[in-house]
Amino acid sequence: MREFELIQALGQRLVPRRTDTILGIGDDAAILDPPAGQALVVTTDTLIAGRHFPHDTPPVDIGYKTMAVNLSDLAAMAAEPGWCTLSLAAPTLDDDWCAALLDGAQAAIGDAPVDIVGGDTTRSDVLTLGVTALGFCPPDQAVRRDGARVGDVIAVTGTLGDAAAGLAIWSERNEYTDPHAAHLLSRLCRPSWRPGQAMRGLVHAAADISDGLYADLGHILAASAVGANLSVGQLPTSQALRSVVSDHRRRQQMQLTGGDDYELCLTLPAAHVDTLAARLGCRLSVIGEVVEGQGLSLFDEQQRVCSIEAWASAGGWDHFS
Amino acid sequence: MREFELIQALGQRLVPRRTDTILGIGDDAAILDPPAGQALVVTTDTLIAGRHFPHDTPPVDIGYKTMAVNLSDLAAMAAEPGWCTLSLAAPTLDDDWCAALLDGAQAAIGDAPVDIVGGDTTRSDVLTLGVTALGFCPPDQAVRRDGARVGDVIAVTGTLGDAAAGLAIWSERNEYTDPHAAHLLSRLCRPSWRPGQAMRGLVHAAADISDGLYADLGHILAASAVGANLSVGQLPTSQALRSVVSDHRRRQQMQLTGGDDYELCLTLPAAHVDTLAARLGCRLSVIGEVVEGQGLSLFDEQQRVCSIEAWASAGGWDHFS
Repeated sequence: MREFELIQALGQRLVPRRTDTILGIGDDAAILDPPAGQALVVTTDTLIAGRHFPHDTPPVDIGYKTMAVNLSDLAAMAAEPGWCTLSLAAPTLDDDWCAALLDGAQAAIGDAPVDIVGGDTTRSDVLTLGVTALGFCPPDQAVRRDGARVGDVIAVTGTLGDAAAGLAIWSERNEYTDPHAAHLLSRLCRPSWRPGQAMRGLVHAAADISDGLYADLGHILAASAVGANLSVGQLPTSQALRSVVSDHRRRQQMQLTGGDDYELCLTLPAAHVDTLAARLGCRLSVIGEVVEGQGLSLFDEQQRVCSIEAWASAGGWDHFS
Repeated sequence: MREFELIQALGQRLVPRRTDTILGIGDDAAILDPPAGQALVVTTDTLIAGRHFPHDTPPVDIGYKTMAVNLSDLAAMAAEPGWCTLSLAAPTLDDDWCAALLDGAQAAIGDAPVDIVGGDTTRSDVLTLGVTALGFCPPDQAVRRDGARVGDVIAVTGTLGDAAAGLAIWSERNEYTDPHAAHLLSRLCRPSWRPGQAMRGLVHAAADISDGLYADLGHILAASAVGANLSVGQLPTSQALRSVVSDHRRRQQMQLTGGDDYELCLTLPAAHVDTLAARLGCRLSVIGEVVEGQGLSLFDEQQRVCSIEAWASAGGWDHFS
């Protein structure tokens, strides 16, 4: 299939949902009419086969994950998603493969009012996907990393460590019939993105957990010039993770340093926790508190301070390490 | 260098120019305050080593070209550029290499009020760069591909075929001391992007020439459901192209089907040509006219209708052919 025809074919699969999309795919650029009085929030993330997802990941899951991780970045700013572009570079491209990829991206979008308004396709020896996502937020309600305050509690959405366990399962290449294993694999391939708008007016600082809690919370603390105490025993654990990974230190290691969970890590006054939990519509767990100083102090179940080395291989999921 | 540190280092090189950039690189997303009452124009383009530029292209030129081709897409819509993101995937990354790449991107931006507000860095076996560019235009003044009208003249900015000749020179891997050869190489590696805002209110349809005049004008005609007559002898030719490529059929082939010139091809009433030329501040050449029907009829110097096959290897620069 020739490149221009491919773009046309992809464009025809994309039914616009937004009345403020003036012109979508097919010209040199898209034309959009952003809502008045809102800040524009912009993020971009590239995913590469063999690095961000296993080479044999089905295209529908590749499309899902690429879209979800970008929508998660918008959510971490408390922004509502509106538009995105999708760039695709691949060794070979056929209609069915591209259709599955787009179906996955649309599945990640779900019912959200998000239009895919641009993109390009190129041949490359390495399968590479790029999304740029555009969202909106009232200018004074966007949530940054640098707003954490001493006395805030630290909370996370959902459960942690599932994607890391999913990756371990995938690496073993076994056939799993266990529904717990299936759940963990799904968490790796089809991460949730949370409705970050729920944080507006309640939360002081937030980041999504892409590189692992230890690394991403570390970024919040550094940006905010504060420290934190974290209760490792309180990290939210799925039934599936508990079932599949029996060793609790190994579980905790996955929860602290495993990447790809795409849950939100945030700091807020304790008085706002219940309101936020109700607005989010997902599990919200308090796991620590913001303190004066710098760095992250980890407390185990016996309230002993432990170095991250106690859980081995620290540093999260760093693509250059 | 670790990924997060690299992003920080890149961010420090990027001094914001726009007061409406609320938050740039370093958080989960950027926060921007777009001008009220303007449409937002969005484009994205990915460039891959060995496909869009030779493997041994210096990083400063890679950065320049990646940025310029995206700004050119905005220009083709008559949009004024405002912000962009830059994604970088590369086999190895070091400070000097990244600094040179960013210097090139900034050189392509020149004095334009454009901030680089986001990006990511990843390791990949194939050097891949992606830019998403955001610009503005009054909603009713954006120029699309589908607005060409019967009776319009067809015009192009600058000169054509230079980048194709530059690529041929590069492929020979000779040392050139000829200033004409240097000019053609520069046109390949550092394409101009034109001030597309000049087209507002004057031009009916436009596209930038990335895949070759024959292909890109063809997209305008197809989108507008019109045909065109093109005088091949009137295609604007640089002194350098004339000097380096002595055979005039070969020159014309490069001008018709060679990619990467990033000049604007546009249609407009003949009465607006002088005004547009004065506003653009660059050469503007009338090369044909829009007619009823469909497809592109090529006329040679003797006013004979010729098939594109007369210039051999038609079809432009298609990444999948």
